[in-house]
Amino acid sequence: MHTTDVNEGVEDAKEWLAKAFRRVRLTVISKIEQNESIYRELDASRAKVTLKEKDANPKSQAGADSRKTFTDHMVVVDWTADRGWADPEIVPHAAFTLMPTASVLHYSTVCYEGMKLYRGFDGKLRLYRPDENAARLATSAERISLPAPPPAEFKALVKKLCSIDGPKWLPQSRQGEYLYIRPCIIGTDPSMGFDIPKEARFFIVISGWETVAETAPSGLRLLTSRADEIRAWPGGSGNFKVGPNYGPTLRNLGQTKGRGYDMTLWLFGPDSRITEALCYLEKYLELVTSPVGDGLILPGITRQSVLTLASERLREGAATAYNLEPLEVVERPLTMSDLAAAHDEGRLLAGLAVGTTYFVTPVGEIDWNGKQILLDSAENKHLLAIKGWLSDIMYGKVESEWAEIVDE
Amino acid sequence: MHTTDVNEGVEDAKEWLAKAFRRVRLTVISKIEQNESIYRELDASRAKVTLKEKDANPKSQAGADSRKTFTDHMVVVDWTADRGWADPEIVPHAAFTLMPTASVLHYSTVCYEGMKLYRGFDGKLRLYRPDENAARLATSAERISLPAPPPAEFKALVKKLCSIDGPKWLPQSRQGEYLYIRPCIIGTDPSMGFDIPKEARFFIVISGWETVAETAPSGLRLLTSRADEIRAWPGGSGNFKVGPNYGPTLRNLGQTKGRGYDMTLWLFGPDSRITEALCYLEKYLELVTSPVGDGLILPGITRQSVLTLASERLREGAATAYNLEPLEVVERPLTMSDLAAAHDEGRLLAGLAVGTTYFVTPVGEIDWNGKQILLDSAENKHLLAIKGWLSDIMYGKVESEWAEIVDE
Repeated sequence: MHTTDVNEGVEDAKEWLAKAFRRVRLTVISKIEQNESIYRELDASRAKVTLKEKDANPKSQAGADSRKTFTDHMVVVDWTADRGWADPEIVPHAAFTLMPTASVLHYSTVCYEGMKLYRGFDGKLRLYRPDENAARLATSAERISLPAPPPAEFKALVKKLCSIDGPKWLPQSRQGEYLYIRPCIIGTDPSMGFDIPKEARFFIVISGWETVAETAPSGLRLLTSRADEIRAWPGGSGNFKVGPNYGPTLRNLGQTKGRGYDMTLWLFGPDSRITEALCYLEKYLELVTSPVGDGLILPGITRQSVLTLASERLREGAATAYNLEPLEVVERPLTMSDLAAAHDEGRLLAGLAVGTTYFVTPVGEIDWNGKQILLDSAENKHLLAIKGWLSDIMYGKVESEWAEIVDE
Repeated sequence: MHTTDVNEGVEDAKEWLAKAFRRVRLTVISKIEQNESIYRELDASRAKVTLKEKDANPKSQAGADSRKTFTDHMVVVDWTADRGWADPEIVPHAAFTLMPTASVLHYSTVCYEGMKLYRGFDGKLRLYRPDENAARLATSAERISLPAPPPAEFKALVKKLCSIDGPKWLPQSRQGEYLYIRPCIIGTDPSMGFDIPKEARFFIVISGWETVAETAPSGLRLLTSRADEIRAWPGGSGNFKVGPNYGPTLRNLGQTKGRGYDMTLWLFGPDSRITEALCYLEKYLELVTSPVGDGLILPGITRQSVLTLASERLREGAATAYNLEPLEVVERPLTMSDLAAAHDEGRLLAGLAVGTTYFVTPVGEIDWNGKQILLDSAENKHLLAIKGWLSDIMYGKVESEWAEIVDE
């Protein structure tokens, strides 16, 4: 039988312990490394802020009043399929780099949102229904094969950027005015093979905006789209806010503006269905608009707000409180023939173009293949009431869960 | 009567002359300035070349054999609506800068081309029908409201880039192989209002490419698109090579690949019309494909080449020279029912997927709502003949005006 020296045993035990320790350490390091390579969700609280150097140009202190003026900062967050979202960065608004082979530059992998930041009459900054933008961006991203930020992180980043740039670019002197916020997701994968992007970028910029009232005092002039050009199709992407819906419509927009109109009114099909968030008001009294369910119309947040407010406050029994005749909200496929017939029979009271950009804007004229439909929308009392209610929420004249305050 | 001193008159005259001279000079300067601001057309001969520093990595000397490998250089030319095209620059392939508000990143103002550079069996570099790419890019650019380079300048720039990168990336050791060329135009206008871009960029990059034969030896496996998703529609942009046709189809492609297929076969309408450059061969003998005139199908250059060669060489009286049965080329709207009926009645001999990327690739299988249409295309003699003729032109085994030599 082999006997061992006590000291020898101690030495063995020491060596064994040292080895074991090394093994455990390597395991821990490996676990940490594995952990680092695990997909990370977007975390707005990790945003790193790099402020712009003090602005030498005092002009911009007056705020932004053109859509070509951008605020000082932007949010940029990069994503890869393997590692998820990087830490968000808030940096000075400037050019960024992209590989010339980036997916978005070839295959139009892009979706975006349009939002506004309002300077309330109570001096506070507000966002309007930002949860709706977050939710819609997520559905658009899924449609165009891009990752979407989780709604809570989306909202936190929008608010963070607004709280940094709001005070300077939408100062107290601009109560009742707004800035335009553009969150956007693009495919940055540079591998150029036609495939779902494995790299993407989410960014947010803010610009000024001309008020529409100045550009169209007596109502927008719309020209219907040509029969041989179609914006959206069932099974396409017209009901999502993705870039590919926009570029191909510019040619028509150019012709529309060239003929002196403000906007193209996009129609679809042999019955000339209206595929935009246009509402019209009938003498009868109905507020009529196309439903979004057919895949042709963007589910607009302003559109939904108008329908909700009109349903709640202008229904039988409620409207009298506002000294208005009650009306019924009707969602049905809306065709140009319906509209023209209502016009010819003297039933057409007003038209409303509805959206974040144009808010609730009276339509003054629709030109449909040479047939002029003139509308006296601008002074319509129902339209003015709806505009007022929305505006009161946005600019904090009333309390509403649709408005969220941005801390400064 | 007032009399004047002669000297005084001379002084007056001098002063008048001096003034007149100043006036003429100012006019000349103004003319020069006006002239400088006049719109300039793209001029390939003004290209400024900045070569990449010597490559320390010897691996890349072996050429490019992956579509994720890019050659050393790229062409970049900027354009503005006022001043036209800047001097073209050929610079090292690298990231470029774009404003985050650039039109292409929001409204998908992008169109592109796909071309190949072939290393012939005679050792020469060739392009295949580059005039066709130039012409198609111009129509795509018009459709998406971007400027297009004049065809001659387009071709000169493609050739210039190929002559710089061809020798290293497609060396003599790679006869019978090719590189992939991607010319692209994007809207860079940073003003973000939705409008026709007043700034744009035209660029060209070159990548390697896996040969399709390796990826699909027994023929491509196609899965037809879902009934609730469509790629293109009449009045849309499906018949132009614009980015917006691509991004929205990625979701479907992901599902297709997830189910083990190579590609989505895009259908349209209640009669399941095939809206891609797919040809099939009938026992009868007909080579059938959909016409491009309906606005759903891209007017493919390879597609047109296949139809032309088949019409010329496989018609009655010509085919026997190639030891082949004559066939008739038929362009008619092609539906999945036609294809399925031909299959069920034993009339279907072969299917061909045709395009720059996939060249002329045999189709092995089409899955249409669970119905499997198996094709024995890979060994079809007519298909092999057409492939061979095209390949002979591309790789310089025969003389053809369709092939253009690139000087090295």
